Amino acid sequence: MTVSRTVCVGFLTVITVGTLLLMLPLSTATGEWNNPIVALFTATSAVCVTGLIVVDTGSYFSPLGQGIILLLIQLGGLGYMTATTLLLLLLGKRLGLKDRLAIQQSLDTAELSSAASLIKSIIAMTMIFELSGAFLLMPRFANDYDTGHSLWLSLFHSISAFNNAGFSLFADSLVQYARSPWISGVIAALVILGGIGYQVIMEMFIWVRDRIRRQRKHQVFSLHFKVVTSTSFVLLVLGTLAFFAVEFFNPATLGTEPLNMKLLEASFQSVIMRTAGFNSIDIGAMETSSLFIAIALMFIGASPGSTGGGIKTTTVRILLNCTRTVLKGEDEVLAYQREIPDKRVLKAVGVVVASGMTVVMVTILLSLTDPGIEFIALLFETVSAFATVGLSTGITSELSTLGQLIIIITMYIGRVGILLLMSALLGDPRPSTIHYPEEDLLVG
Amino acid sequence: MTVSRTVCVGFLTVITVGTLLLMLPLSTATGEWNNPIVALFTATSAVCVTGLIVVDTGSYFSPLGQGIILLLIQLGGLGYMTATTLLLLLLGKRLGLKDRLAIQQSLDTAELSSAASLIKSIIAMTMIFELSGAFLLMPRFANDYDTGHSLWLSLFHSISAFNNAGFSLFADSLVQYARSPWISGVIAALVILGGIGYQVIMEMFIWVRDRIRRQRKHQVFSLHFKVVTSTSFVLLVLGTLAFFAVEFFNPATLGTEPLNMKLLEASFQSVIMRTAGFNSIDIGAMETSSLFIAIALMFIGASPGSTGGGIKTTTVRILLNCTRTVLKGEDEVLAYQREIPDKRVLKAVGVVVASGMTVVMVTILLSLTDPGIEFIALLFETVSAFATVGLSTGITSELSTLGQLIIIITMYIGRVGILLLMSALLGDPRPSTIHYPEEDLLVG
Ligand SMILES: [K+]
Ligand SMILES: [K+]
Repeated sequence: MTVSRTVCVGFLTVITVGTLLLMLPLSTATGEWNNPIVALFTATSAVCVTGLIVVDTGSYFSPLGQGIILLLIQLGGLGYMTATTLLLLLLGKRLGLKDRLAIQQSLDTAELSSAASLIKSIIAMTMIFELSGAFLLMPRFANDYDTGHSLWLSLFHSISAFNNAGFSLFADSLVQYARSPWISGVIAALVILGGIGYQVIMEMFIWVRDRIRRQRKHQVFSLHFKVVTSTSFVLLVLGTLAFFAVEFFNPATLGTEPLNMKLLEASFQSVIMRTAGFNSIDIGAMETSSLFIAIALMFIGASPGSTGGGIKTTTVRILLNCTRTVLKGEDEVLAYQREIPDKRVLKAVGVVVASGMTVVMVTILLSLTDPGIEFIALLFETVSAFATVGLSTGITSELSTLGQLIIIITMYIGRVGILLLMSALLGDPRPSTIHYPEEDLLVG
Repeated sequence: MTVSRTVCVGFLTVITVGTLLLMLPLSTATGEWNNPIVALFTATSAVCVTGLIVVDTGSYFSPLGQGIILLLIQLGGLGYMTATTLLLLLLGKRLGLKDRLAIQQSLDTAELSSAASLIKSIIAMTMIFELSGAFLLMPRFANDYDTGHSLWLSLFHSISAFNNAGFSLFADSLVQYARSPWISGVIAALVILGGIGYQVIMEMFIWVRDRIRRQRKHQVFSLHFKVVTSTSFVLLVLGTLAFFAVEFFNPATLGTEPLNMKLLEASFQSVIMRTAGFNSIDIGAMETSSLFIAIALMFIGASPGSTGGGIKTTTVRILLNCTRTVLKGEDEVLAYQREIPDKRVLKAVGVVVASGMTVVMVTILLSLTDPGIEFIALLFETVSAFATVGLSTGITSELSTLGQLIIIITMYIGRVGILLLMSALLGDPRPSTIHYPEEDLLVG
């Protein structure tokens, strides 16, 4: 079986097992057999770390059901991060010697040596971050709840945040902690670390370690590291400014808040919008322009080799750098004094166009199955499902069963990714022996 | 002076002269000096064959003023078509021998021989189509108006349609002729011919001529011909179906019409939306989803080497074929058994991203200068100006002066094109002597 088929079938298997487990009476708070659609929707949403919900996780499911959801999140997030990191490193291995050196310098050679040790390293890193997160969240939750429940809340939200899953045990997500810089800060840090990808974290870790050991050797950061960190930073700042400006006077969101809280909540939404899917302000009450900004941020999503979804920061950056090249009338697409191969730009085009077309087609289907809901809410829901974000204007549970099934399929496609899914369906392409002559066209 | 600077300065010069002429008292119906902003807006809209208006052309301007507008349309449309056709043929000349043969077979060698004869050929073709159009429009207008006025109406609308200018002497554009298959058909034919580009028309002409002469030699259509005709056809059909479906029950547009009129009006809007800018139904009364479809069609626009604007059919087709290649896991971007050079795909990316960013930035600027107007109307207006379409939800004359100036600049940028403008501003790039090593990135 090819790598892509393994990933696709793997996700399907975990979703199926998860659905069966969530249907058991033990999983629901009432102790009754669960509605199969609710179980399927919740399991898919958890395994795809999307976070869209048709029932309130905290009150509808028993503690055991919540534990199953948490396990599905962990399996889904870890599985995806491992698979995409492996792909990233395989890509690195196919490169020439000079570039491989840059990557090997940033990752220990031992870590590159085998997939098994890579997986161990990813699992260890995940556990360290999740436990630290739970530890840091604990004191604030302990203010409001008893010890046992606050332990559970801390663990659940830490794992959900690091895996960019967006599941919350509170009915209003994190709205009640909107004004807590501590909770917002810890959650945002977990979300950013989970969404930036394993390789970036490892390169950062090695840099810090060398500084502590006072080894003054010059570390060459990989192109991947530079592109991901700079693009993520710019997106976070732009998102914060945009939400801050647009929602400044909206009384249902930031309008009544003092200035520092406006900034805190705008920046939290900017972090969360790209893939995590918690919310500290009411999405349904946002201005239409904010929804468009949100849709753009959700569509872009996180970075490759992470737990997050979307078309990815690197894809956007490649297309932007390609545009700069074209506008300057030049030929080579550059980033940080490295040439990006033309084939990679073509792939970025494929990802964006195919993703955009999927979103448009799903939105059209939803407007047929649920004609009563307004267009922008359906578009928002579709992008949220496709980019595994999990935010909603509040329509998820109002959708018809057919509409919910469409969202379930969209979450799955969005998680495994269109390219991977196509390659799983079509198999590896046979090398073509026919070559066609070139003929040029005028564009623009 | 480089070609790109010549085009940019040429358009600016004609706009300036046009503005001065339209300011004269002789140009207005009242005989008073014209408002400079109105004159500048109208001259820019005419030269850029956009068709956005802040005053009603038929009642605000004197016959002389209308004649000046028609002259500006003719100069703008012809100038642009000539410039882009020359670029297209220069591109053809840079290709290898085998491909040049295909193009030379479809265009007479004599026609390729010099720019002067090309320009003569384009002018002759334009005059033939415009006079035929005026002749065909005449009888229907003569039903409703006296001979002199109906002659003027026929000539004005024929020239406006072939140049995809969208200016009309009727206050409601062509709404009063919405149910006339004759007027709709002639206007639509002129719009399609004007928007499909000189080279496609010539290849079609040669094919027809050879059939008539019973020369059974096998004609090789160029890749440009195949891509433009098939893409345009698909877009026309999809646009018709979309408007037909969405507006089927809307009482303000198609809802009260019989089935055949619904089809006629939907197909007319589909033809007209991509760049011409007449309308036979009220744009402001359309459903929101129709506005989104319209925005997409406007953004795509016409074909290279024509009078129309937008990012062009070939650009869209290249990106779609690139997506197909990527989804199949293949390497070469193909169209009709020809390979499209990677550099051309990069250029298509640059055009789409830079155009999209311009539209977004202009829309944001307009929402600052005119905060009272809703977002979708501003977005529609911006895309309409940028893609030289000229349709409006009806807000053009309500915009603040600053907003109108922004639209004027947008029409200019959209007409000369971002790539041409950048190359005019930056000059020809110096061949770079530095080459950077390749480093790969994971996308999607
Ligand atoms: K999520
Ligand atoms: K137009």
